[in-house]
Amino acid sequence: MKSSLALAATLLSATASAQTPLDPAALRDAALEDELAWDITEGLTTEIGPRPAGSAAEARARDWGADRLRALGFQDVRIETFPVPVWERGTESAFVTAPFPQPLHLIALGNSGSTPRDGITGEVAMFDSVAALEAAPDEAVAGKIVYIGHAMRATQSGIGYGQFGAPRRQGPSIASRKGAAAIVVRSIGTDDSSVGHTGVQTFAQGVQPIPAAALANSSADQLERIAARGEPVRMRLVLTSRQTGNHDSGNVIAEVPGRDPDAGIVLVGCHLDSWDVGTGAIDDASGCGIVTAAAKRVMDAGTPRRPIRIVWFGSEEIGLFGGAAYGEAHADEKHALAAESDFGADAIWRFDSDLTDGAAPVAARMAAALAPLGIAQGPTDAAHGSDIGPLAEAGVGIVQLQQDGTRYFDWHHTAEDTLDKVDKPQLQQNVAAWTAMIAVAANAEEDMLAD
Amino acid sequence: MKSSLALAATLLSATASAQTPLDPAALRDAALEDELAWDITEGLTTEIGPRPAGSAAEARARDWGADRLRALGFQDVRIETFPVPVWERGTESAFVTAPFPQPLHLIALGNSGSTPRDGITGEVAMFDSVAALEAAPDEAVAGKIVYIGHAMRATQSGIGYGQFGAPRRQGPSIASRKGAAAIVVRSIGTDDSSVGHTGVQTFAQGVQPIPAAALANSSADQLERIAARGEPVRMRLVLTSRQTGNHDSGNVIAEVPGRDPDAGIVLVGCHLDSWDVGTGAIDDASGCGIVTAAAKRVMDAGTPRRPIRIVWFGSEEIGLFGGAAYGEAHADEKHALAAESDFGADAIWRFDSDLTDGAAPVAARMAAALAPLGIAQGPTDAAHGSDIGPLAEAGVGIVQLQQDGTRYFDWHHTAEDTLDKVDKPQLQQNVAAWTAMIAVAANAEEDMLAD
Repeated sequence: MKSSLALAATLLSATASAQTPLDPAALRDAALEDELAWDITEGLTTEIGPRPAGSAAEARARDWGADRLRALGFQDVRIETFPVPVWERGTESAFVTAPFPQPLHLIALGNSGSTPRDGITGEVAMFDSVAALEAAPDEAVAGKIVYIGHAMRATQSGIGYGQFGAPRRQGPSIASRKGAAAIVVRSIGTDDSSVGHTGVQTFAQGVQPIPAAALANSSADQLERIAARGEPVRMRLVLTSRQTGNHDSGNVIAEVPGRDPDAGIVLVGCHLDSWDVGTGAIDDASGCGIVTAAAKRVMDAGTPRRPIRIVWFGSEEIGLFGGAAYGEAHADEKHALAAESDFGADAIWRFDSDLTDGAAPVAARMAAALAPLGIAQGPTDAAHGSDIGPLAEAGVGIVQLQQDGTRYFDWHHTAEDTLDKVDKPQLQQNVAAWTAMIAVAANAEEDMLAD
Repeated sequence: MKSSLALAATLLSATASAQTPLDPAALRDAALEDELAWDITEGLTTEIGPRPAGSAAEARARDWGADRLRALGFQDVRIETFPVPVWERGTESAFVTAPFPQPLHLIALGNSGSTPRDGITGEVAMFDSVAALEAAPDEAVAGKIVYIGHAMRATQSGIGYGQFGAPRRQGPSIASRKGAAAIVVRSIGTDDSSVGHTGVQTFAQGVQPIPAAALANSSADQLERIAARGEPVRMRLVLTSRQTGNHDSGNVIAEVPGRDPDAGIVLVGCHLDSWDVGTGAIDDASGCGIVTAAAKRVMDAGTPRRPIRIVWFGSEEIGLFGGAAYGEAHADEKHALAAESDFGADAIWRFDSDLTDGAAPVAARMAAALAPLGIAQGPTDAAHGSDIGPLAEAGVGIVQLQQDGTRYFDWHHTAEDTLDKVDKPQLQQNVAAWTAMIAVAANAEEDMLAD
């Protein structure tokens, strides 16, 4: 905290001399005292709470967002709806019945199959990786409850999520193909708590859904200790849930008009939906707060050259539905650049980009404007944020402002994703970085469109 | 960690020269490499898990403990049973129905009344203290769901538990007397998590039990934010539970014979039962590990002057039943000193005592033996540990080895009370301190009995 505040004071004092309103440095420094991103994050998480994809709460959140964006002075605020398949959580419990009877803590994964109301009981087949499960003969798995562990550790970049997320993403389909009765994976998270991490998994085509859940990390530790005693482990699982068919989801879109629409839209995004167990503060209300507050600062400084478009995507968590719907609906529009904030609210430490060659001077000016915030230059072949994937594939330039993810996977997709996890000075650093980046992108004279 | 290990190395090297086996300093230093306390803590939490008072799991834990104590070479290992009234947790959920519909996280308090299966719905009456509730007119409370907040903060001594525990201990009876339909209090804990803190409360004589629960601290924050918007808040509570009548609980007792039984017993205790939601690692399996490992070290060094008695008390959590049963059953025996470990497993930082005047030289030798572990001299009118209260009231000398409680109330009475919260080097420091203290007490030539 102290370092962020000290930095803010230094920057503010260094830029006290008069500068033009559109100077990215001046806008950046003023944004270090931003209140709007916090207000949006606090408001959305408090007045709506959890916002599961396709739910009534997500619909209320769209209306809340549209009202708020209009009140902030954005133009042409609208909701673009699309249908999504909805899975609903039911009752969840796990109990080791042998050799040491005791409860464990777990949470169902998205699209889990359902047990009967009284649950199922079976022997547990222990694996320490997806590869080990894949290598196992079917008879070692058939009729059993599969467990897969892993050893995810916290990193600044969150780089382990891809590797260590495999048990959740691929484990259920592999287990089902081998005839497993159910699967429980170690939570894809870096905490040692009793709170499980949910997340989507989708059974592969033709694969029978089976009950699928994530054990809280302290319960995964416990199960591994119990199994290490060498006796067969049996477990009772109650995991009721249901598919409720298609329901409306939607993207909330708002515009800052530009002087030269042909120069292409600068799109800044976040996602509005959240998992059902927390209030989605770091995933991703804070992202919506950050990009909206930054866009407003640039808007209020005077009409930019390029239009700026804010998109609060719907139904990201269950399979990037909002990004796909947007990509289809807006394929014919010129986008100069797209960027999404969807990795919490801790400080940005690296500026990644994937822009056309002609935009190299723009990237250089962005890097210069970001450096005083402690942001390093990262790769120029950036991975793209989730909902802007379709735009990236269509050749739109991408900027990624990488947030510190050290704490992120302690709380990701859990009941712990609540407002208290958002650190306001770091949130303000995010707004400052986004403000500078948007100001540069929206006012650059260079052509930023891909050929 | 490093400082503990470095300390251990220094002490071990400083005492490498030959010393008598009963030298407390030598025993203390060797205990810094203790493995037994960890083994007991790991074993009890893994092979039994949660051990609710009066449950089948607590009965299994008694057998586990008696077997282990016998295997360690203690004498006259036995179980002394007594009946306890048992309350059983059922289904628990909270949902804000207005103005902002959303779920909250909570946990029922011990002896909570039960709602119907479908729950109850009512307006929430917000209070920030027990005093504010007491001062409220009945009509502000009648028929409503009372909420009481507080502002507990972490301290090394845990001193806030008395003050800030009042909403849990007194709130339900006061709310019921004023006609409240139910009560939810802010969890008595210092965390910001989604995991609620349970704990016992007992409705006062003649007071109608009402549903009583603790909101997780992040949910209490959320409810306070929602209420601060100024609109009436309504909540649906499902809190089913039941009283199942009297069941057996018991104390597990083991002896180290002494050369001079008339010099009085040195009693070292812990409690075997735990709450139902975690595995009771810091509350209080580690306490049993610490006192047992320390007593064994003194036993193995040669027959002490005084007998040493280990007591793993039953049913502490629901009202100190084990301590009361022991006090009654053993009122006629001579106890020279009693001490209990029941505040986690973090390092001991203060040595408190309440001994007869004649034992002042004993206390001085204890303090000298403890000082190299970084343990300061505390008050000589020590508060007494819970289960040894009846002994203290009967005039038995008391020693309290105060553990660092800074982290304790983050996890106390929650699902987070699991083995990963026990830090082995600090656990070993506890064993070293207890070993030194017991060695001094059991071998002191001074008369330590009260008149």
